[in-house]
Amino acid sequence: MPSSGSKPASPRPPLAAWLRDGNSITKQFMALGGCPDVISLAGGLPAAELYPVEAIAQASQAALRRWGATALEYGAIEGLPALRAAVAARISAESGIALGPENVLLTTGAMQGLDLLGKALIDPGDLIVAQFPTYLGALDAWRPRRPVYEKLDWNSDSPAFEAALARAKFVYAVPNYSNPTGALVPQSKRQALLDKVVTAGTWLVEDDPYLPLQLGGPCGPSLLSLQEPGRNKAAYDGPVIYLGTLSKSLVPGLRVGWIVAEAGMIEALALTKQSTDISSSMLTQAIALELIESGFEAGHVSRILPVYRERRDALCAALAEHLGDWFAWEVPPGGMFVWAKARLAEIDTNALYADALAEKVAFVPSSVFDPAGALTSAMRLNFTRSTPEQLREGVARLARAVRRHLAAQPGRAA
Amino acid sequence: MPSSGSKPASPRPPLAAWLRDGNSITKQFMALGGCPDVISLAGGLPAAELYPVEAIAQASQAALRRWGATALEYGAIEGLPALRAAVAARISAESGIALGPENVLLTTGAMQGLDLLGKALIDPGDLIVAQFPTYLGALDAWRPRRPVYEKLDWNSDSPAFEAALARAKFVYAVPNYSNPTGALVPQSKRQALLDKVVTAGTWLVEDDPYLPLQLGGPCGPSLLSLQEPGRNKAAYDGPVIYLGTLSKSLVPGLRVGWIVAEAGMIEALALTKQSTDISSSMLTQAIALELIESGFEAGHVSRILPVYRERRDALCAALAEHLGDWFAWEVPPGGMFVWAKARLAEIDTNALYADALAEKVAFVPSSVFDPAGALTSAMRLNFTRSTPEQLREGVARLARAVRRHLAAQPGRAA
Repeated sequence: MPSSGSKPASPRPPLAAWLRDGNSITKQFMALGGCPDVISLAGGLPAAELYPVEAIAQASQAALRRWGATALEYGAIEGLPALRAAVAARISAESGIALGPENVLLTTGAMQGLDLLGKALIDPGDLIVAQFPTYLGALDAWRPRRPVYEKLDWNSDSPAFEAALARAKFVYAVPNYSNPTGALVPQSKRQALLDKVVTAGTWLVEDDPYLPLQLGGPCGPSLLSLQEPGRNKAAYDGPVIYLGTLSKSLVPGLRVGWIVAEAGMIEALALTKQSTDISSSMLTQAIALELIESGFEAGHVSRILPVYRERRDALCAALAEHLGDWFAWEVPPGGMFVWAKARLAEIDTNALYADALAEKVAFVPSSVFDPAGALTSAMRLNFTRSTPEQLREGVARLARAVRRHLAAQPGRAA
Repeated sequence: MPSSGSKPASPRPPLAAWLRDGNSITKQFMALGGCPDVISLAGGLPAAELYPVEAIAQASQAALRRWGATALEYGAIEGLPALRAAVAARISAESGIALGPENVLLTTGAMQGLDLLGKALIDPGDLIVAQFPTYLGALDAWRPRRPVYEKLDWNSDSPAFEAALARAKFVYAVPNYSNPTGALVPQSKRQALLDKVVTAGTWLVEDDPYLPLQLGGPCGPSLLSLQEPGRNKAAYDGPVIYLGTLSKSLVPGLRVGWIVAEAGMIEALALTKQSTDISSSMLTQAIALELIESGFEAGHVSRILPVYRERRDALCAALAEHLGDWFAWEVPPGGMFVWAKARLAEIDTNALYADALAEKVAFVPSSVFDPAGALTSAMRLNFTRSTPEQLREGVARLARAVRRHLAAQPGRAA
């Protein structure tokens, strides 16, 4: 018997298989927030200078006066009942669907919603039909469950696509200002997808974190709301599992998000949440309730939007000035991102990323939004977290990085 | 093509396999909190009337003044750096091991620590050697990863037990006032287990939520601290993965817990946490930091302990008065629970549970603490959540339930 603390007689057991294969690229991007001389267009963060610190301080006092010890309990797994009711009322008003608290599970941000969905639905090898390119956080959340992916084609009427839907555990879509592309899916395509999903008999996960960030006018009805007339008279039993959050309209740090779905799915997700963290913080949910009920949140969005619109326009103008020969993009009608696609086959955004860091600017290469990691011709640029000046300087640095990248190509003069 | 919203052409896909097999028994117990006429000895909740609402209101103001927008961000995956440092300093002082922030991951309560460990370490079929009976929350947390279990025998020197350790992904132990038994593992057995773990080359998960609840004197050094002399001079590289929480010493509703381990394990767990919820709330972590740094938390524990000691003694006295013929127990030296073992083979605590509910009292039957569900001869009784009067009335009801249960046995007169 060795003395305790001596070196192990054999190596310790390995990590789970998914983690041994995993990549750490998001963590790398988030860590960049701590490098003050790098201009990071990589993150997906709101503008911190707009966070309403004083309003949240007041709301925390009001919440503790109102709820006392109730705000300091484990609380119901499903979340603070009054906030569940408030979210149900909000989504009912937005969607025209009759929803009650039994249709709402509160989560630690919408990200936990993705984790819970993966746990509750995915067995190894299950198929997910996902909007492509796909939100990195969703790929990350589901990696421990080992699914496989096929692309969601909003335009396809092919039997192969319909067969994929019929085999899928669920469909994953971000119709409003998709992460990473910023694209808004037109209403006609939404209705067509919902029809196919209903025919196939699968679930449809609608991830809607960017809903408040409507920079170019209304985004139109959600997939959740696209139901036949009369459906909203009864309890919701449709296939849509809808995810929302306060992270974009208020602050991410409260970590308050929600899942809205038919009541049986909410029960299954609550069982899953119980085994994940027992409950989210009742205190931050009680604070969120104050800010919603008082109307503060709605007013705050109207203060954020002009700032984000100016930043989006500054980024796109700088791109036109510096990168137009090398990349193409569309001005996003909302959300937080511009998706720049390379015009030249020589541009590989995985390789460009190293050149960009050398020039002290960061972006997210497209490969991380591809379950197969093969998409290397585009990049995601965030405009919400940087000032117009930072965005202009960042794009100028990016242009130098592209020159450096192209100069290193075989067959081109340095 | 059907109109949208029509009934699906085929049933929707099923839930993941673990959830189809799962049980909902904890949820059932937690929901009992909402039935005012049932005396619940089933939960594992602190005394809500002792929650320091005013101190937390003040701490939330101080935290927002001190940290501003930083407390409202996603924050670092690993948690608020200043709180990581404070936890490292605390556990260093308690254990004598030199720990830094790199050894600490902050979690949404210790429960999330169990979830993250399961995700990061367990592949289907992996072996866990777990203290038996086993904390229900750990079994719940790991069920989605589909492990198998063998019993941790603190007394065994058998080659079979050592072979099991060598095959195990990790060992799971709650040495201080175990949930459900309330037992305190003696120091000599702790050292012997650590020696065996080191020889086997596996991980040792030490779950220590009840540390603050020392009702009968000091509990002695943790497994984490049982290292050879000189080990604390260098960076920690031992096999112990230690879980702690503020849920018992302060309030559960902040949802602040921690994992302490060697730095490489913390990195792997942080990657896992990133894919789970991006980060926990920085606001509740900043509030927790105020309450730790000010010394409030330490003082609060000294106010809680006399109340819990009185309740434990009231429960045990009532058991002696009403249940001594049918059950045996030991007075727990700490924690939140009394573990009552049936003296009669006729008593089945699964069946007794229904009789208890009919008498408007609830407990947790032992079967839920057994991965195989086969242990039906004991029950867990909580004493922290109920007043002495409620405990006495609850035990009187339990006695009526036992009479009813025995009367229904074949071969006994009704």
